[in-house]
Amino acid sequence: MKAPIEFYFDFSSPYGYLASTRIDALAAKHGRSVSWRPILLGPAFKAMGTPILAHTPLKGDYSMRDFPRSARFHGIAYNQPEQFPVSTLAAARVFYWLKARNEKMAITFAKTVFQAFFVDGINISEPERVISLAVEIGCREGEVRAALEDQAVKDRTKAEVEGALAKGIFGSPYIVVDGEPFWGMDRLDQVERWLEKPF
Amino acid sequence: MKAPIEFYFDFSSPYGYLASTRIDALAAKHGRSVSWRPILLGPAFKAMGTPILAHTPLKGDYSMRDFPRSARFHGIAYNQPEQFPVSTLAAARVFYWLKARNEKMAITFAKTVFQAFFVDGINISEPERVISLAVEIGCREGEVRAALEDQAVKDRTKAEVEGALAKGIFGSPYIVVDGEPFWGMDRLDQVERWLEKPF
Repeated sequence: MKAPIEFYFDFSSPYGYLASTRIDALAAKHGRSVSWRPILLGPAFKAMGTPILAHTPLKGDYSMRDFPRSARFHGIAYNQPEQFPVSTLAAARVFYWLKARNEKMAITFAKTVFQAFFVDGINISEPERVISLAVEIGCREGEVRAALEDQAVKDRTKAEVEGALAKGIFGSPYIVVDGEPFWGMDRLDQVERWLEKPF
Repeated sequence: MKAPIEFYFDFSSPYGYLASTRIDALAAKHGRSVSWRPILLGPAFKAMGTPILAHTPLKGDYSMRDFPRSARFHGIAYNQPEQFPVSTLAAARVFYWLKARNEKMAITFAKTVFQAFFVDGINISEPERVISLAVEIGCREGEVRAALEDQAVKDRTKAEVEGALAKGIFGSPYIVVDGEPFWGMDRLDQVERWLEKPF
């Protein structure tokens, strides 16, 4: 049994969203599963000493043009969120709470969150919207609400985010295949080749 | 006659080098020529408020791994320069001096500089090495030496670098096709599709 591909992303990352629509099929083609790992990019930008992408002069403007164009290039639905980027802490907490109970359901939740933010114009920074999305895929509202306030869930999410940063993960998507790191939607071609044979 | 593709790059940029080995053939396939435009990335990083790539925590380490891997992926010779990154002012000046006399020769010079830096381990920040490379492709040593001291050549190079930054060009390679900007070696696939038909 080959190790799962590690797929790190921020729910507010356009390139993370684009990659999320491809990563499972790409992995399955090579007999791999995917370990989905939402992170928060804020601390990574702080560690790098750089402003966040959308707020970086020159590059930020370019990226707002590149997001929808890259989506069109890959044939993926995309509507630039008006509020952007946003905090994705609540979504990450619900994800990790769900993952401990049912990983498949957590992945379904992640896809639902991405779709809500990048297609349906839902502001996923609002805990109430996140709760609704979890309910939509079959969670009980009271349980989700309690999970969001649960210190153990908060701690686990923090540990995941800090653990990723400690491993040097600074962007989204960031994909690790058998220890080899690939950053960016535009590295999926290299990920695919690597899965065939490391080069 | 279709407009040439604008190809901006820094001679010290690994991804600029990788793209330089492909851009002419890609353009020719679509009946286009390429306007090669060396720039200096230092002022762009300053404008963006970010450290230069190789000196950025986390991302810098990753990039040192990605440079040679991307070269292998594309089947392009690559040896990581020991001195890196370096000032490319002298090379840019000789390029623009040559371009005013003979654009084809300027492009040959650019390819020679890239090969020297990224394959042969020559430190292209040293004016004497840049002069040797120009002589190698048929320039007269005295003329190159004089050009490097020529105020008009210095001014033209400065105008090119500042003009690019004023147009929002912040990275290398940065390719403009009929006004549409593409940043990165990993956007050559989108450049190609755009040349077929804007999307």
